[in-house]
Amino acid sequence: MNILIKTEILISALQNVISVIDKSFTKPILSNFMIQTLENEGEQGMVEFSATDYELSIIERIPAQIKTSGSICINAKRVFDITREFRAEEIHIRSTEQLWVQITCGASELRLPSVEVGLYPQPKIEELNQQLKISALDLAQCIDLTLFASQTNESRRNLMGVALSMTEDQRTRWQATDGHRLAQVIQPVEEMNFGEVTEIILPRKALMEIRKVCDLMGEMVDITFDERVAQFSGNRIHFKTRLIEGKFPNCDPIIPKDNDLRATIHRENLIHSLRIVSAISTEKLRPVKLNLEANQLKLESEKTEFGEASDEFTVNYDGKPFEIGFNTRYLLDVLNVMKSEEILMEFKNSMSPSVIREPNNDIFLSVLMPLRTEW
Amino acid sequence: MNILIKTEILISALQNVISVIDKSFTKPILSNFMIQTLENEGEQGMVEFSATDYELSIIERIPAQIKTSGSICINAKRVFDITREFRAEEIHIRSTEQLWVQITCGASELRLPSVEVGLYPQPKIEELNQQLKISALDLAQCIDLTLFASQTNESRRNLMGVALSMTEDQRTRWQATDGHRLAQVIQPVEEMNFGEVTEIILPRKALMEIRKVCDLMGEMVDITFDERVAQFSGNRIHFKTRLIEGKFPNCDPIIPKDNDLRATIHRENLIHSLRIVSAISTEKLRPVKLNLEANQLKLESEKTEFGEASDEFTVNYDGKPFEIGFNTRYLLDVLNVMKSEEILMEFKNSMSPSVIREPNNDIFLSVLMPLRTEW
Repeated sequence: MNILIKTEILISALQNVISVIDKSFTKPILSNFMIQTLENEGEQGMVEFSATDYELSIIERIPAQIKTSGSICINAKRVFDITREFRAEEIHIRSTEQLWVQITCGASELRLPSVEVGLYPQPKIEELNQQLKISALDLAQCIDLTLFASQTNESRRNLMGVALSMTEDQRTRWQATDGHRLAQVIQPVEEMNFGEVTEIILPRKALMEIRKVCDLMGEMVDITFDERVAQFSGNRIHFKTRLIEGKFPNCDPIIPKDNDLRATIHRENLIHSLRIVSAISTEKLRPVKLNLEANQLKLESEKTEFGEASDEFTVNYDGKPFEIGFNTRYLLDVLNVMKSEEILMEFKNSMSPSVIREPNNDIFLSVLMPLRTEW
Repeated sequence: MNILIKTEILISALQNVISVIDKSFTKPILSNFMIQTLENEGEQGMVEFSATDYELSIIERIPAQIKTSGSICINAKRVFDITREFRAEEIHIRSTEQLWVQITCGASELRLPSVEVGLYPQPKIEELNQQLKISALDLAQCIDLTLFASQTNESRRNLMGVALSMTEDQRTRWQATDGHRLAQVIQPVEEMNFGEVTEIILPRKALMEIRKVCDLMGEMVDITFDERVAQFSGNRIHFKTRLIEGKFPNCDPIIPKDNDLRATIHRENLIHSLRIVSAISTEKLRPVKLNLEANQLKLESEKTEFGEASDEFTVNYDGKPFEIGFNTRYLLDVLNVMKSEEILMEFKNSMSPSVIREPNNDIFLSVLMPLRTEW
């Protein structure tokens, strides 16, 4: 292999590759990535970078001047560390004798060992029947508004991601829950064909990495999937992730339909108040009590040896006086991913799940289980 | 105690206090800080914040409206976390029954436990005979240009800081070394009286914290000291640090006087080249060989199983062809704190210490021991 690549293109491509590379070093082969020249009709003048940690893979195509075609497999971190120091415009990469790779840029010359290409589990883009097309902006929003509610520990693997399915009226549904809270986005998309795969569970890590590069994926992202894997493709970047096996619970029954106590609350005010009131707590989840009466919200901490705290501010509420407890962390998690200036909270009673929405954004809702307060 | 303080003043004062607070939690009392109203002539309308980790102390005076004088000792991190969420302009702090402290700001109300004032090792500003006055900008530069060379591990405690002494021609000398390298600044100052204390060793941690707030200390900083402690005072902020006991080695004999092979090198170019060439090394100190000949500097890594690397660029050098080895990390450390566009390197031979200077800044020099290269 013998290719010339523009330095800035190489650096930005490697940034994405690096984020997928396995950081645990338990499988040394996974610290490498592949560079392969493409030969098919319409792909000339392109090389493919690919990397995988077995769960998540990235495949990127970038333009290059190809002098001799071929492929190499080489340490990703080392090539990235070197490349980002280069100041000349073009980088020359060629394989030489006995798996050595020569990298030159301006007067800089490096000789690095590479790995036998056949040893690397090179990821490949697959033709998959199920497919949908979503704008990159909508995809970013679907991830932001659901991922926070997914489970982070391994006790229930089927909750460690976001479930993607189709609603009866042909929109996509994105759902995540950890048993204490639920987040859901119902997102219309341009094209959609779920075929016989009615639901897939996308893993946390894949969605976090995809979210990071959403703005590099162009205007539209193509998602293709079957019952094993999903692929996210846009602007020559392809992510491929294994899906979480198992069944996602049916969350419809826990979404309250008749919560008729409604308060409209300034989102930033609530965030500040929650942080103030929870600051005296040493517990991880920091219980807080919300006290609603005519156009007034009062927050109160538990009284402990570390003190007590309260705060109050004006809200829009004309229901009956009412109090309910929550975990501050769960409340802050959802408030921090929301974007609207005000939020709508809908309660039934202090024992039933509450709903949090954006007033002018029907597609999102979050359900939060209350906490029994004894103060 | 019953006082009113402007929120923004309190937040910025607490930011400094927090940096001194002991993070190890081995001595719980040190997670607190003191607030004390001042009563002396000329100090009315001021409160004093103070905190210590036994080695380093901070004493800050800030304006407040004092309704009842007194003092409290309270958890610093908790008060800071609460305070920075407040949005109203003024914060009301008052002690109530049984060591409880009431903090209110707008509608926010908190009740926090405090600690018996007498239990806290409250730091006090002392009258000390030895003294010097330095501009805050010069002080920042003296710290930046020396601290990097001090020893970080505890094997030789007397090297774990910067030695401050007086030169024969009445300037201050700042020196640090870890045995592999030396950094020295000779800084003229406005006033100076070393009295009988000819040299003090300022600990790393104190200098790092002082460096962070140099730009808050006003134009001039007063340094006062005796053989046990030093105090840095400016703009109502006082740092007090214990000094490192022991004798700092006499470094004059290792500062080369007759290094006549001189190269003028573009600093950023050298930094980039060092990073490129050292990227293939897995050793911590990353050996590199510098090859000088007529107006050309070539850098070469060792050849290892991880590869080999070289780079070269134009420099200003008209001496004889010459090669010398260094640890890349030590070279980068000094290059990264220097500010000049070009640097001057002075060599004698490949076995003798080299000197690194800024061409237009006589007050600074760094000495670096070479590394024997066998490639």
